[in-house]
Amino acid sequence: MKQVKGFSKLSKDEKINWLTENYFNDSSQAKQTLERYWNQDQKLQKLHDEFTENTISNYYLPFGIAPNFLINDELYTIPMAIEESSVVAAASNAAKFWLEKGGFKAEVLSTQKIGQVHFTSAAKTEKLTAFFNEVQPKLIEEVKAITKNMEKRGGGISAIVLRNKTADLENYYQLHCTFETLDAMGANFINSCLEQIAETFTREAENYFSSEEQPEVVMSILSNYVPQCLVRAEVSCPVQDLLPNKADAEKFAHKFVEAVKIAKIEPYRAVTHNKGIMNGIDAVVLATGNDFRAIEACAHAYAAKDGSYSSLTDASVENGVFKFWMEIPLALGTVGGLTSLHPLVKLALEMLQKPSAKELMKIVAVAGLAQNFAALRSLTTVGIQQGHMKMHLMNILNQFEANENERQQVIEHFKSNTVSHSAVVEIIEGLRNGN
Amino acid sequence: MKQVKGFSKLSKDEKINWLTENYFNDSSQAKQTLERYWNQDQKLQKLHDEFTENTISNYYLPFGIAPNFLINDELYTIPMAIEESSVVAAASNAAKFWLEKGGFKAEVLSTQKIGQVHFTSAAKTEKLTAFFNEVQPKLIEEVKAITKNMEKRGGGISAIVLRNKTADLENYYQLHCTFETLDAMGANFINSCLEQIAETFTREAENYFSSEEQPEVVMSILSNYVPQCLVRAEVSCPVQDLLPNKADAEKFAHKFVEAVKIAKIEPYRAVTHNKGIMNGIDAVVLATGNDFRAIEACAHAYAAKDGSYSSLTDASVENGVFKFWMEIPLALGTVGGLTSLHPLVKLALEMLQKPSAKELMKIVAVAGLAQNFAALRSLTTVGIQQGHMKMHLMNILNQFEANENERQQVIEHFKSNTVSHSAVVEIIEGLRNGN
Repeated sequence: MKQVKGFSKLSKDEKINWLTENYFNDSSQAKQTLERYWNQDQKLQKLHDEFTENTISNYYLPFGIAPNFLINDELYTIPMAIEESSVVAAASNAAKFWLEKGGFKAEVLSTQKIGQVHFTSAAKTEKLTAFFNEVQPKLIEEVKAITKNMEKRGGGISAIVLRNKTADLENYYQLHCTFETLDAMGANFINSCLEQIAETFTREAENYFSSEEQPEVVMSILSNYVPQCLVRAEVSCPVQDLLPNKADAEKFAHKFVEAVKIAKIEPYRAVTHNKGIMNGIDAVVLATGNDFRAIEACAHAYAAKDGSYSSLTDASVENGVFKFWMEIPLALGTVGGLTSLHPLVKLALEMLQKPSAKELMKIVAVAGLAQNFAALRSLTTVGIQQGHMKMHLMNILNQFEANENERQQVIEHFKSNTVSHSAVVEIIEGLRNGN
Repeated sequence: MKQVKGFSKLSKDEKINWLTENYFNDSSQAKQTLERYWNQDQKLQKLHDEFTENTISNYYLPFGIAPNFLINDELYTIPMAIEESSVVAAASNAAKFWLEKGGFKAEVLSTQKIGQVHFTSAAKTEKLTAFFNEVQPKLIEEVKAITKNMEKRGGGISAIVLRNKTADLENYYQLHCTFETLDAMGANFINSCLEQIAETFTREAENYFSSEEQPEVVMSILSNYVPQCLVRAEVSCPVQDLLPNKADAEKFAHKFVEAVKIAKIEPYRAVTHNKGIMNGIDAVVLATGNDFRAIEACAHAYAAKDGSYSSLTDASVENGVFKFWMEIPLALGTVGGLTSLHPLVKLALEMLQKPSAKELMKIVAVAGLAQNFAALRSLTTVGIQQGHMKMHLMNILNQFEANENERQQVIEHFKSNTVSHSAVVEIIEGLRNGN
C-alpha cells in the first residue's frame, strides 16, 4: 500500500522522493523530468510553489499573443494561455478580418455579483420576514469592518433580501445578497461578508425564535452565477463587405446565420459551438489570472437559462447588414488574487494597458466572439480540419522527432494531401525506411 | 496605430520585439519577464513553442499531487494542474477521509461519442430517407481509409442515422453519427470522418435530387455533448462512521444532504456547487493533457439537461447509510493529442499507471466527487473561508515580499484572528512601521 501520512508537511524534495519511488519504474528519470521544468530562479520558483499545495513542478501552457484586435476603436494585442493548437491563430485571423471593417464593439451592461446565506427554518414566513426586517440594519452594520475599504472605493453590499424557497424545498430560505466589487473578482470579499452576515443573523435569531423555529444556516457562499454581470460584444458590416465577390458574400452570410440558428435549437451543436467561444475566453481568463472554472460554469448555465441549452452568440442579416453578437456574464477581476502575484499575469494586464474589470470584460467577450466567428467561418467554408490538421502535423512531427529534412518533405507532401495521424505516420516511416 | 501585418510569419524574437516596443513602457523589462519563463533547454522550449501559435513564453500553472486516493481498491496519487489555492489540499483531505472508509467506487457506464453532419434540404423527408438508406453503405465504405486503424483496435463508427429536425428549423436535417474512439479523445478522428461522410453524401446527392431539393451541408463537426460517455463515482459508509461522535455524525450527514438538495433546486447555488466539482476535474484534465473546455461545456450542459440547471452530485441517507455520488459525462483520451508530446503529461499518465481512457474517466470523476465532498464538508461546518484565507494569507505575504520574521509574526497573529486582505495588510504595515 502506498498510503502516506502527513504528506502536506513534507518538503518538496521529500514529496518528490516519495512520489517517484512509489509510482514510477524509473524514479530518477521522473525526478529529472519534474526538475527540467523548475525555474532557475529559486525565488521565482518559490513564489509559484506557494500558489497552491503539494506543488512539485510547473505545468506549462503556451503563452501566446493575438494582435490586431480593434475594440471600441482601440487596438489591442490579446494575451492567451492555451494548449489547444489553432486557437491563437483563429483569434488573430478573426481580429484581422474585422480590423478593416470597423472592428469590435463592446459594452458592459451590468456588474452585479451575488452571494447567498442558505438556511432552513420551521418558523412561519411572516415571522421570518418580520425578523429579517428588524435585523437587516444590524447585518449591514456588523459587516462594516469587512466592507469599509470596498465602500470607500464605491463598492460594497447593494442589497440583502430574504427569499422564500419553501415551494421548492421544505423550510428553505435565503439571504440573497447583491454586491458591487469594482475591479476585484471579489470571491474572498463576498464569502467573508456572507459568513459575517450569517453569524449576526444566527446570533440575533437566538432570542427571537423558539428552538423549533430556530433558523439553521446550511452554508454561506458566493454564487458564480452572475446573469446581471453582463457584457455585450458585437461586429457588423454590410454583407457585401464580407467577401470580395457579392454572390460569395451573400452565400457566406446566409450559411453563417444558418449555422448560428442550428446552434440555437440543437444542444448537441450548441455545446460545441459554445465550447469554441470558451476557447477564446478561457485563454484570456487564464492569462489574466482569473478563474476559468467560475467563468465556464456561469457561461454554460446562462446558455441553458431558457430551459434548453443554446448558443451564446446570435447572428442576423437585415437590410443588407450582417451582424454577429453575444451577451455573456463574466465576473472578472484585475486586482487581487493572482493579478499582482504571477509575473506573467502582471505582464498580460500591462499588455492590455492595465484595464479595469469592466474593460477586461469587454476584451474577454470580444476574444470569445472572435473565436466563434473564426470557427463558424471555417466550418461553413473549408471545414475545421484544414487548419486543425496543419497544427496537428507539426505536433506529430515533433512526436517523431523528425529532422529538418524529414519535416520539409512531410510538409510538402501534405500541401496536396489530407492530413490524418495515420497518413503522417505512414509518410514518416516511409521516409525512414527509404521508400 | 499598432496594426501589424504578417505577424505569424515573424520569428519569436521579432514578435517579442514588436510587442514590447508597442505595448510596454519599459520594453526591456517586459522582455526580461518573458525570458525568465523560458526553459533553459532549447529543444524542450521549441517543443512547447510549437504546441500552438505566436507562443512567446510559458504560462506556469502549479503542478501538484494529491495522494491517498483509494479507487476501486487501488491506491492512486493524482496529478493536478491548477492555480487556485486549496483545491489540491481539499482533494487530499477528502482522499484521506475516505481512505479509511473503503475509498471511492467508480464505473464507466458508456463510452459513445457523437458527431454530426448538419445540412438543409427542401426535399421531402420521405425522399431524403430513401436516399439516405441507399447511400449509407457508401458513406461507411468511403470513410474506411480513415477508420481502418481505429477498427483494427475495436473502435470506429457504430451508427449513422438521419435525423429530421425540421420541426425546430426549416429544412434542417442531420446525419447523427456515433463513434467509439477507445483510448483516444478522438476529435481529429471524428471530424475527419464527418468531413468525408459529408463529401460522399453531397456527391451522391447531386444526381438524386433536383437543384431545388439539393442538400446543402452547413457544417460537419463532432459534438462535445456526450451524455452517453458516462462515468459514475460514489462513496458510502454508515452514518456513524462519518464522525467520532454519533450525534455530530448524524447532524453532519443531515446538513450535507440538505446542502446537496439545495444545489439540486437552486441554480444560483448549483452553478457554484458544480464549479467546485470542476475544480477537481479540470485540474486532472489539464495535467493529463485533455481539453478542459470540452469537458466543461459537456458537464454543464448535462447539468441543465432536465430543463433547469442543477447539481451534478447526489446524496442520501438511507437505513443509516450515507451515500454520495455523481454521474458525469467525460470524453477523455490517454493517447494522441498532447498525451505523448508534453513531458509532464506523459509523467502524469505514468503516475496514474498509464490508464486507459476508461480508467482515466473513473479517476477524473473521483477527483470531482472528492472536491465536492471537501467543499460541502467545509461549507456546512467551519465555512469555506477558513481554508481559503490560510492560503490567501501566504499569497498576500508573497505579494508584500515579507521576510521570514514578518511571516512568522503574521502567521502567529492569524492563528487567532480572522484573515481578510485588509487585516493582513494592516498587520504587515504595522510591523514595518514599528507598531
